[in-house]
Amino acid sequence: MNTPREHIIKSYDDELTRLTGEIVRMGELAVTQLESAIDVVERRDERAAQRVVDNDEAIDALEQEISHDVVRLLALRAPIAGDLRNVFAALRIAADIERIGDYAANVAKRSIPLSMVAPISAAAKLGYLAELAASEVRTVLTAYRDRDAEAAYQVWKDDADLDEAYTGLFRELLTYMMEDPRNITPCTHLLFMAKNIERIGDHATNIAENVWFVVHGEPLVAPRAKRDLTASPDFDRK
Amino acid sequence: MNTPREHIIKSYDDELTRLTGEIVRMGELAVTQLESAIDVVERRDERAAQRVVDNDEAIDALEQEISHDVVRLLALRAPIAGDLRNVFAALRIAADIERIGDYAANVAKRSIPLSMVAPISAAAKLGYLAELAASEVRTVLTAYRDRDAEAAYQVWKDDADLDEAYTGLFRELLTYMMEDPRNITPCTHLLFMAKNIERIGDHATNIAENVWFVVHGEPLVAPRAKRDLTASPDFDRK
Repeated sequence: MNTPREHIIKSYDDELTRLTGEIVRMGELAVTQLESAIDVVERRDERAAQRVVDNDEAIDALEQEISHDVVRLLALRAPIAGDLRNVFAALRIAADIERIGDYAANVAKRSIPLSMVAPISAAAKLGYLAELAASEVRTVLTAYRDRDAEAAYQVWKDDADLDEAYTGLFRELLTYMMEDPRNITPCTHLLFMAKNIERIGDHATNIAENVWFVVHGEPLVAPRAKRDLTASPDFDRK
Repeated sequence: MNTPREHIIKSYDDELTRLTGEIVRMGELAVTQLESAIDVVERRDERAAQRVVDNDEAIDALEQEISHDVVRLLALRAPIAGDLRNVFAALRIAADIERIGDYAANVAKRSIPLSMVAPISAAAKLGYLAELAASEVRTVLTAYRDRDAEAAYQVWKDDADLDEAYTGLFRELLTYMMEDPRNITPCTHLLFMAKNIERIGDHATNIAENVWFVVHGEPLVAPRAKRDLTASPDFDRK
């Protein structure tokens, strides 16, 4: 038989499990949005692109719902220490996922003005970037569900690969633009799309940091490569 | 004489006033960062740029502090209805300010690789964009401090001017890039800097929406021009 105290604790755990499930589902929706966005870039399907843009509202609504659940949980249960960390991380992770959804929708949106003259190889590399980012987000969501700090740390480190691929594509796009002025407008959109995907990777590392914090109770601090090398002082000093 | 109940209410109000003050100060720091960033772009001062980048940590730390204050307030006081709205808005506004700080630091960072060949008129227009954005953020912070929903709504509407200025600069930069390939790399950085400033305006409108919600208890919904016209289907269809 449960004592009333055990009953409260169990119910709190239930609520936390439900909250984690909601966040993971929201995250899966955001990854699907990213994959759909890349798909419409490849197919140049304007109506499908608009659908991705419209779907972003569902993710925003989920974040609002999760935020309200978190605030209710805080107000009703007054959690402390480890529980408070969990609730706090939930709020931050939901905000990161909301941003991932925004970036995915923006990739889809920019596929519409992208004219057919965009260099094919650059568009293909954008797909590769998106694959890396989607894989980061999926892995970190699983790490969050399982409270697996090591798996989260791996995502955090692996984001350097996405940064490197982004820097390579950035350089390549500049070259296309210099070769032929007709490439400038489409390559500018591809630059912003690539940047959006690189930012998705940054949000995956934010989530990884939150998973680490939830598990260990202290922040993840370790040396790591700078995020956007194209914005660094050395980028143009070859 | 205060009854204990009144005492609790007054103390809660005190805490909320203190929280509002903290957030306004954090916001002022972010605006100063934006102004410093534009200053270093104009002067091409690498060391000053690095200082702006480093200062961003202070804003991040303030956001962490505010988030913890909010969570403590929620856990200890279990506020309801209007109070809950206030606390909830504080959390969201602090997050928006943290993003504004990030964008300001990114503008400063990109000023470093910006070569001297960047078209002067474009760099000057970037300064104008930053002025509009800084004014939006300052005005919305005052509106938040005074719980002035009408002033917040004005900022929300005025952001259309910043969007228009951004679209104009975007077109101009494309023209420079097409005229001379040597402009491509510096103009790419200017494009990203302009985009960062345009996003600061978006965060000012987010804050405006939160001020409206705090005052009226319902979301601000009104027809408004699309944010980034350069990402819209009609941009390249002249």
